[in-house]
Amino acid sequence: MHSLLNKLNLTERFSQQINFILETDKLKQVIRRNFIADGSRRENTAEHSWQIILITLTFSEYAKEKNIDLLRVIKMLTLHDLVEIYAGDVFLFDEQANIGKFENEKLSAEKLFGSLPEDQKHEFISLWLEFEATNTPEALFANAIDRITPFLLNSVNGGQSWTEAGVKAEQALKKLAIIEQGSDEIWELFTQLLEHAKTHQLLL
Amino acid sequence: MHSLLNKLNLTERFSQQINFILETDKLKQVIRRNFIADGSRRENTAEHSWQIILITLTFSEYAKEKNIDLLRVIKMLTLHDLVEIYAGDVFLFDEQANIGKFENEKLSAEKLFGSLPEDQKHEFISLWLEFEATNTPEALFANAIDRITPFLLNSVNGGQSWTEAGVKAEQALKKLAIIEQGSDEIWELFTQLLEHAKTHQLLL
Repeated sequence: MHSLLNKLNLTERFSQQINFILETDKLKQVIRRNFIADGSRRENTAEHSWQIILITLTFSEYAKEKNIDLLRVIKMLTLHDLVEIYAGDVFLFDEQANIGKFENEKLSAEKLFGSLPEDQKHEFISLWLEFEATNTPEALFANAIDRITPFLLNSVNGGQSWTEAGVKAEQALKKLAIIEQGSDEIWELFTQLLEHAKTHQLLL
Repeated sequence: MHSLLNKLNLTERFSQQINFILETDKLKQVIRRNFIADGSRRENTAEHSWQIILITLTFSEYAKEKNIDLLRVIKMLTLHDLVEIYAGDVFLFDEQANIGKFENEKLSAEKLFGSLPEDQKHEFISLWLEFEATNTPEALFANAIDRITPFLLNSVNGGQSWTEAGVKAEQALKKLAIIEQGSDEIWELFTQLLEHAKTHQLLL
């Protein structure tokens, strides 16, 4: 528990929740591989998490399943990268680093969400697992948004995180194939961006 | 319209939406006055926007109105600071800079949201106005979350943005009084944090 909370007189439940918020502030210091749109620096995971929520609100009409629970999509997107606080960000195209990723992140989820009141711990872990399992319409749309976002940024900033790692177009196609299950329109955007990236040699 | 979009073959509507997303990426470069929890640097508005959404999900039970529309709260919080892209961030306690703030931000809102399809433009401007008007339960809860967040961060990071500007406890009380209308529990947290800040001379 953060030392501040020992100085306050709040319920145990509220203290646990505030402590969780103070701990998750660390997401602002998890640096991702990809760059922001103007290419001036890499982004951090807190910024990315905000952006995928804004994109969800803006692109909501493109979910494949029309009666989607948008609040649940947003909950998943807000929470799903918090595990990086302990597990770190793993670059999508780093095959080696992706081995054991789920198990590491699951330990991180249990540690981080385990500090919350029991009901919220279960709710947040369930949402995280739903996002990872990609077998509900909400999880599929959330994953589509999460995957297209850095791809779109790379498409306008010179693809620095791709070129420095020598990412191939066929890798991108394989790793982003899941978009097709979440949204026809975002899939169409992806295929056009992929062609653009090949034409401009952003991807090998 | 971003030059990338001229190279793609998408609907006018989808192009406008993608253009909006690329433009709003600039929120990652709007620097706020307050520091992140560990005090190592100031935060940017994209990070702040993510954090207030996470706090909303974690503190949702504390909304004064129990049947609150949580999705609308989150929509307001995701969108309300986008106006800072053109209008800049205005420090809550800088009385001079706050003169004309609403009018500046309204122009910014019209410019930014005006690039979206007509229906979304109206939806997003309405949500921004609702947040600013603070007369629905959703707007009051959203404002409570938005105000307590930097106050909480200042309470744990030494209050650097307060001390460098010589912020007084009575100013904080006045500017954060609106929290009481949104949440009893968050108001209680604020009053305890205010006492703590006075005791530790974080506020004058």
